[in-house]
Amino acid sequence: MSTVIRIAGPADVGDILRLVQALADYEREPDAVKADAAMLHTALFGADANAEALIAEVDGRAVGFAVWFHNFSTWTGKRGIYLEDLFVEPETRGQGIGKALLVRLAQIAIERDCGRFEWAVLDWNAPSIAFYKALGARPMDEWTVMRVDGDALTALAGQ
Amino acid sequence: MSTVIRIAGPADVGDILRLVQALADYEREPDAVKADAAMLHTALFGADANAEALIAEVDGRAVGFAVWFHNFSTWTGKRGIYLEDLFVEPETRGQGIGKALLVRLAQIAIERDCGRFEWAVLDWNAPSIAFYKALGARPMDEWTVMRVDGDALTALAGQ
Repeated sequence: MSTVIRIAGPADVGDILRLVQALADYEREPDAVKADAAMLHTALFGADANAEALIAEVDGRAVGFAVWFHNFSTWTGKRGIYLEDLFVEPETRGQGIGKALLVRLAQIAIERDCGRFEWAVLDWNAPSIAFYKALGARPMDEWTVMRVDGDALTALAGQ
Repeated sequence: MSTVIRIAGPADVGDILRLVQALADYEREPDAVKADAAMLHTALFGADANAEALIAEVDGRAVGFAVWFHNFSTWTGKRGIYLEDLFVEPETRGQGIGKALLVRLAQIAIERDCGRFEWAVLDWNAPSIAFYKALGARPMDEWTVMRVDGDALTALAGQ
């Protein structure tokens, strides 16, 4: 078995969309994915692209992916890497592919002089939290993200 | 009194750094700010700038600011606005300046077809959480951000 972690290119959009949908299915939110191939292409490879992706391949088949973007901290004064999605197909887990994706992103963070590498985890996902802590991550327990979207966003813009 | 909310330009970097420091002082972390004017200029106005800023002026003096960047969601397929910092000098609070900054960002989110407008709040900051909820925001209570930085980031990259 040969595992390769590589930067995604435009030809990978179909695989990324398939894996995004697989992640939504896995999280039991199969209807949550509003993105289509054109939207992913715009975000990852368009003129104003602000997201990037890694692909994990086993024997030439895409079995996992990571999508991230750069955030920014006024305190560090530096960009960081924010990992939006990480997914490895269930049937290929336990082979270190998820960890390999995280290590590659940490390397990119160092290469680009990023101050932080961050991602979000569901509070009840104890196995993942333990795995992330073992890799050196610490939970930002004191913080909660507030979100405005949909009709609430339109209403706020109109105030 | 005349209050103006406007997009920040390169000439505002000094004021933004002053207000970033004032925010850190207010949060009792006066030594937390590692950013300097050159770093802020790079992030906000450099060739690879990925952050943007708003300035709130009262009678021509900068009394508040917001710094944000675009995030991305594979589920919405769209960019969002992530508000990294929002601050209004304590002596000018209660005049709706913070709300005006949030409303302006919601307008920018609509203008740019963003799917979400998000920011983080400290869990114990009940007055702010109530204020944000009244503006239509909902807490993403189930999620915790994991962070790797400093020596832990270097160690992870070396695995």
